[in-house]
Amino acid sequence: MKNRAFLPERRFMEAALALAEEAFAAGEVPVGAVVVKDGEIVGRGRNRREEEQSVLGHAELEAMTAAAKALGTWRLDGCALYVTLEPCPMCAGAAVNAHVERIVYGAEDEVMGACGTAVSVIDLPRAFKPQLYRGLLAEECAALLRRFFQEKRT
Amino acid sequence: MKNRAFLPERRFMEAALALAEEAFAAGEVPVGAVVVKDGEIVGRGRNRREEEQSVLGHAELEAMTAAAKALGTWRLDGCALYVTLEPCPMCAGAAVNAHVERIVYGAEDEVMGACGTAVSVIDLPRAFKPQLYRGLLAEECAALLRRFFQEKRT
Repeated sequence: MKNRAFLPERRFMEAALALAEEAFAAGEVPVGAVVVKDGEIVGRGRNRREEEQSVLGHAELEAMTAAAKALGTWRLDGCALYVTLEPCPMCAGAAVNAHVERIVYGAEDEVMGACGTAVSVIDLPRAFKPQLYRGLLAEECAALLRRFFQEKRT
Repeated sequence: MKNRAFLPERRFMEAALALAEEAFAAGEVPVGAVVVKDGEIVGRGRNRREEEQSVLGHAELEAMTAAAKALGTWRLDGCALYVTLEPCPMCAGAAVNAHVERIVYGAEDEVMGACGTAVSVIDLPRAFKPQLYRGLLAEECAALLRRFFQEKRT
């Protein structure tokens, strides 16, 4: 059987958005992520940096850690990472280190986006290169972030 | 009182090297790191990716997590990260996110080095910019890595 072309799926970004909403409700910057393998979610995460007072509290790291635990290995070969916001260098770098096959993000991050917006760490000449899919449900993902920061300011 | 110029200190890189030796003895790629604040080590780490089957098992993340725990906050303002190998995008990105003031590394990493060798994530226009000090005990740090990979091959 030939590999079919990869098509990012709305339902997985919707799952990531639901996790972002959870982060919002907890007072955290609303970012959510899921790791998908063979059409199943194998890891979920949401931002909890303030709750944990940990710089590792980003959604993507939580989702990748959960996936690694579920799969019994740090290598996430054949996995797709869906995340509501373009990953920062830390998270995109972790995806490279874990050999995540595909990164699908929603909103762009002009300040920290490390999949091409502020910098790119996913196409280093001698390192593993995840494939990139940008802008799935971008408006929904960005609107949630805007609402969070508007409420913060008032 | 004026700030004195920062001078990277051998003793802290020696402490990082001792942690790298520990990683070596455990069969892990020998990289070690310490976080220093006000002349004291507040966090230590060494590579344990295989042991933990975690992509987060890099020395720098362990050292920064330990420092955050010791200091009670994810913000590592005023801290220096000493590490035997140039940080990868994940770890250099975590240092940026944590507002680590200074990064001091030993050996260069041509494949993954994210402090200027393969890519730079520590001078993004709109993000926090750690100061960089390269090459402290570089030969000792590189020799340990070479020895590890030579033994692996034989």
